[in-house]
Amino acid sequence: MAKKRDITEFFQSQIAQWLPGISIDCVILGYHEQQLSVLLLEWKGRDQLSLPGGFIPKDTDIDQAAHQILENRTQLKVSSLAQFGTFGASNRATSTHALKALAEFDVTDPNILTWFDQRFVSIGYLALVDQKACEIQEDMFSEAFAWVKLDNLPELIYDHAEMITKAKTFLQSQLHQLPVGLSLLDEKFTMKDLQLLYEAILDKKLDRANFQKRILKLGILDRHEKQKTGAAHKAPYLYSFNQNQYQKALESGLSIFS
Amino acid sequence: MAKKRDITEFFQSQIAQWLPGISIDCVILGYHEQQLSVLLLEWKGRDQLSLPGGFIPKDTDIDQAAHQILENRTQLKVSSLAQFGTFGASNRATSTHALKALAEFDVTDPNILTWFDQRFVSIGYLALVDQKACEIQEDMFSEAFAWVKLDNLPELIYDHAEMITKAKTFLQSQLHQLPVGLSLLDEKFTMKDLQLLYEAILDKKLDRANFQKRILKLGILDRHEKQKTGAAHKAPYLYSFNQNQYQKALESGLSIFS
Repeated sequence: MAKKRDITEFFQSQIAQWLPGISIDCVILGYHEQQLSVLLLEWKGRDQLSLPGGFIPKDTDIDQAAHQILENRTQLKVSSLAQFGTFGASNRATSTHALKALAEFDVTDPNILTWFDQRFVSIGYLALVDQKACEIQEDMFSEAFAWVKLDNLPELIYDHAEMITKAKTFLQSQLHQLPVGLSLLDEKFTMKDLQLLYEAILDKKLDRANFQKRILKLGILDRHEKQKTGAAHKAPYLYSFNQNQYQKALESGLSIFS
Repeated sequence: MAKKRDITEFFQSQIAQWLPGISIDCVILGYHEQQLSVLLLEWKGRDQLSLPGGFIPKDTDIDQAAHQILENRTQLKVSSLAQFGTFGASNRATSTHALKALAEFDVTDPNILTWFDQRFVSIGYLALVDQKACEIQEDMFSEAFAWVKLDNLPELIYDHAEMITKAKTFLQSQLHQLPVGLSLLDEKFTMKDLQLLYEAILDKKLDRANFQKRILKLGILDRHEKQKTGAAHKAPYLYSFNQNQYQKALESGLSIFS
């Protein structure tokens, strides 16, 4: 966590470089123990948690700014970063939260307070990451971070809970367009692992035989040796994604009518 | 089309009411003669066409502002208005286009020129409309509008061509979440009409038997009398959407794995 003086100096040097009134918030999802988790930050002196986010340099594309925010935060190069919605209810964010946080750091510069007191429209980006490979960097404001299971979210600031809900709905609708499995599973996995991931995303049980038939029909999996278990004859096969075929399938699009 | 003085007065009175740096562009799609068309505007004195768009009042939610822009333009209350992406490449719009258009109207107020000279991030909204029911209102700048087939687009300003491509990809991915058929078909239609619509959206031929089987399985169609044609025994049945079932199906989500 930064020192008090650092925060004032940081914002004094940066505010003029940013687009006013537009922010970025990132829903960073990981998958662990068959459940989806989201990366949340705790701010000093505040009870509520928040999504990680940031602002957009005036000379930077918004997608590039989102990548920078994400990379600074996770130390990961993330290939799948997708916009899932822009949030702009006129009352979506009260300045109270930010101003109280600034007060914790004795920030009194009126330019900084005015910056946080404006109405922000926020662009939401979804990233699917390998939770284990992330080296999370704390925010200037935040004293801690946590991976929190999606079905057990605490109170969040602003409309961040709505953002997470929207991100999950987006993920469901994009299940056949985003390389979900590539980002969230180990390189080799069983058919059951894959089905459990799809079930976690879709929030419902899927028929085992039907799932296997349809996934195999897509032709995106390579089959490997059997998983090592005690009883070899019952051990399930391991699979991996065939990245070329996966890319082709994504490009051609998939539909329940195809 | 507005008079020259009106334009200066309009912007002088409005600019202070709008959020700076953020605009809205609408991809308004209709369906006619088995093809998707988009509503485009011609600006006075400019060769390129544009999507209809507008700005966001400071006290207005972005979704509400998009509805207002659409209603002002089409005189329709449109239920299905969906964000499909936010466009923010730092070089996405040169001010040349707007400034030349303003010059055509002898607008010289520096506040107005400065407004159009800033970098805009633009939020894209997709609407599916009954083309026949629209009473298109021309823009203050525009002298004409046209419904242009998606596979025959002319040169467009800024990144508007990219927006239309993105809107179509979004529509494809949301085919099972948006009430596409309700908005784009007559109340009663044949199975072939429905298949042709889905083919126009997906840009590919679908197998007739498979399409019929899967659509009927969703349980969202009511079957009516046969279409009146010369040969009654060969006439196809007419269908309509069962709105309750349609809503239920939308809410439960559809997937190729379900």
